[in-house]
Amino acid sequence: MTSIEVKASRSYEVLIDVGLLPQIGQQIRDLIPNAQAAAIITDHNVSKHYLTPVTESLTKAGIRPLTFSMPAGEASKNGAQYLSLLELLARDGLSRSDVIIALGGGVVGDLAGFAAATYQRGVAYIQVPTTLLAMVDSSVGGKTAIDLPSGKNLAGAFYQPNLVLCDTDTLRTLPEFVFRDGLAEVIKYGMLGSAPLLDVLTQDLSQDAVEPVIIQCVTMKRDIVQRDEFDHSERMLLNFGHTIGHAIERLSNYEISHGFAVSIGMAMDARAAVKQKICEPECSEILEALLARFGLPNKTAYTAEQIYTAALYDKKRNAGNISIAVPRRKGKCGLMTFPLNQLRTWIEMGVTP
Amino acid sequence: MTSIEVKASRSYEVLIDVGLLPQIGQQIRDLIPNAQAAAIITDHNVSKHYLTPVTESLTKAGIRPLTFSMPAGEASKNGAQYLSLLELLARDGLSRSDVIIALGGGVVGDLAGFAAATYQRGVAYIQVPTTLLAMVDSSVGGKTAIDLPSGKNLAGAFYQPNLVLCDTDTLRTLPEFVFRDGLAEVIKYGMLGSAPLLDVLTQDLSQDAVEPVIIQCVTMKRDIVQRDEFDHSERMLLNFGHTIGHAIERLSNYEISHGFAVSIGMAMDARAAVKQKICEPECSEILEALLARFGLPNKTAYTAEQIYTAALYDKKRNAGNISIAVPRRKGKCGLMTFPLNQLRTWIEMGVTP
Repeated sequence: MTSIEVKASRSYEVLIDVGLLPQIGQQIRDLIPNAQAAAIITDHNVSKHYLTPVTESLTKAGIRPLTFSMPAGEASKNGAQYLSLLELLARDGLSRSDVIIALGGGVVGDLAGFAAATYQRGVAYIQVPTTLLAMVDSSVGGKTAIDLPSGKNLAGAFYQPNLVLCDTDTLRTLPEFVFRDGLAEVIKYGMLGSAPLLDVLTQDLSQDAVEPVIIQCVTMKRDIVQRDEFDHSERMLLNFGHTIGHAIERLSNYEISHGFAVSIGMAMDARAAVKQKICEPECSEILEALLARFGLPNKTAYTAEQIYTAALYDKKRNAGNISIAVPRRKGKCGLMTFPLNQLRTWIEMGVTP
Repeated sequence: MTSIEVKASRSYEVLIDVGLLPQIGQQIRDLIPNAQAAAIITDHNVSKHYLTPVTESLTKAGIRPLTFSMPAGEASKNGAQYLSLLELLARDGLSRSDVIIALGGGVVGDLAGFAAATYQRGVAYIQVPTTLLAMVDSSVGGKTAIDLPSGKNLAGAFYQPNLVLCDTDTLRTLPEFVFRDGLAEVIKYGMLGSAPLLDVLTQDLSQDAVEPVIIQCVTMKRDIVQRDEFDHSERMLLNFGHTIGHAIERLSNYEISHGFAVSIGMAMDARAAVKQKICEPECSEILEALLARFGLPNKTAYTAEQIYTAALYDKKRNAGNISIAVPRRKGKCGLMTFPLNQLRTWIEMGVTP
């Protein structure tokens, strides 16, 4: 078992191994000795596979399991779902000394995390990511959120989990496109900070061989979060491809998945950066080759104007400026801040290959 | 002008004086130099009196004012109002470097504070309490919340303001019963920690002479919040009368105001404590006399069973126990933790005078 310790405003461990799900009851008992109940937030796809081992493990540890299952997909990460979840927790009698478990991918993790951050002003919670994307990215670092009609992740909180359990057995049941969706975020880590990781991704990468990649991504994220937990500077690098990506997700009404949208965003940012001569052309070529290798998209049918309008709601705005991560060379991104209206030119440069 | 500094997870000043409203623009400019916009959250009653001086002051300081006004009263502090407020902020283009202003009483402060805590994962906010209750209690200490159908303040966050401006001019326009509502919380401070404050309250107390009382209450709250920001121990003393009070508010569908409900809760807790011989009878008598002096209630038509059932959702539950503040003697409360089912007996003892 690999254990990666995250020292943020709350310190916690990320455990990575096969066979972790059946241990969850005992893990919670050790961490939160007087927990009496655990609310498992999950989706209909994940619950079919993994709800039973989790509830059995909790019951065995003397913890009463409650379950809240929602339809899979980003559309569930909305305000109405959030409020009905909170009310259910209250009616089921979850108290401040109990715990919330996020069992699923990024959508479940974001929503369950935000519920944990705000139910009774904060209860303990455990991230149990069951997708590659959630393991390498969204389950670590304490960003929780729901979407507003105006845009993705516009409401939320920084709230660190008490434990993250990455049971890599769960990756075996992932549909292939969901696995590829996660590889988009893995490519992002390579692009922003690790040329060797980009090389690993050109080699054979079966689902079984992915554990070292998860460990590397979580370690990179841990290091960044420890230096900038609240997203004032370096942490914004993790949003490489995300300003355009979030805009595309929203334009598609979340039918384009997060990883696919981020792939397009990264490709567009890299092309714009090359055209502005702040990025080596080789860097953009490497990115495009990796995206192609994993069947990830590098362009979109939306116009630059549509993307610009949707991106105006992005959180990285600050006093009329916006900050985005831009690639410099293979394995290296930097932050760039420019006036909002220059973002339009940037997107126009990126939209055409 | 009196300035009280609160050193919590974020440090800030509470300013108490006449004539502060027209200074708000410059105060924000000094604190948050690159703020471009400020969203004023208020209610229809308060906005009639005080919206104009605030918007004028902001405009003069080069800060674009946005306004969100809601119906006055606890019924506005709900999930739907919260979500529509967040969406309005997004559509109006409020960014992470801008600011939210809570202009009003406890309801406005709780809702605006929770919006500030969670809009784009947190923006700066300024409390501008316009009621005695909000000045002495809810605007200081960073508790923000909305109500759920199951109970009061069940969702929220600990999120400290960047500044609190108590302009005592605003107390002049308060309806008399709203002023008395605030006096209930002042009596609470006397009961939990200051016999001299209880003596002050037996003397002449016009609305003009209330400033020293506000200063004392804010100072007491500041000291408690600095020692226990996240409500694990001593801060629970500030909830004297609130477990029963919140239950009564909810049973009345919030037609009984917070201060009036807390008055009943304090009187009931004191009677139960006297009957259990953990409180000197004199202490309960002093409390009842003060409540009578200010026309505040000491009993309710709800049954012990109704109150107990509504109180089961209280946040102070912990692994089958509940902690409440109980009076010991004049000017002194302590915390008591007992199994939930003993709360029923406690309420039965308190319900009859």
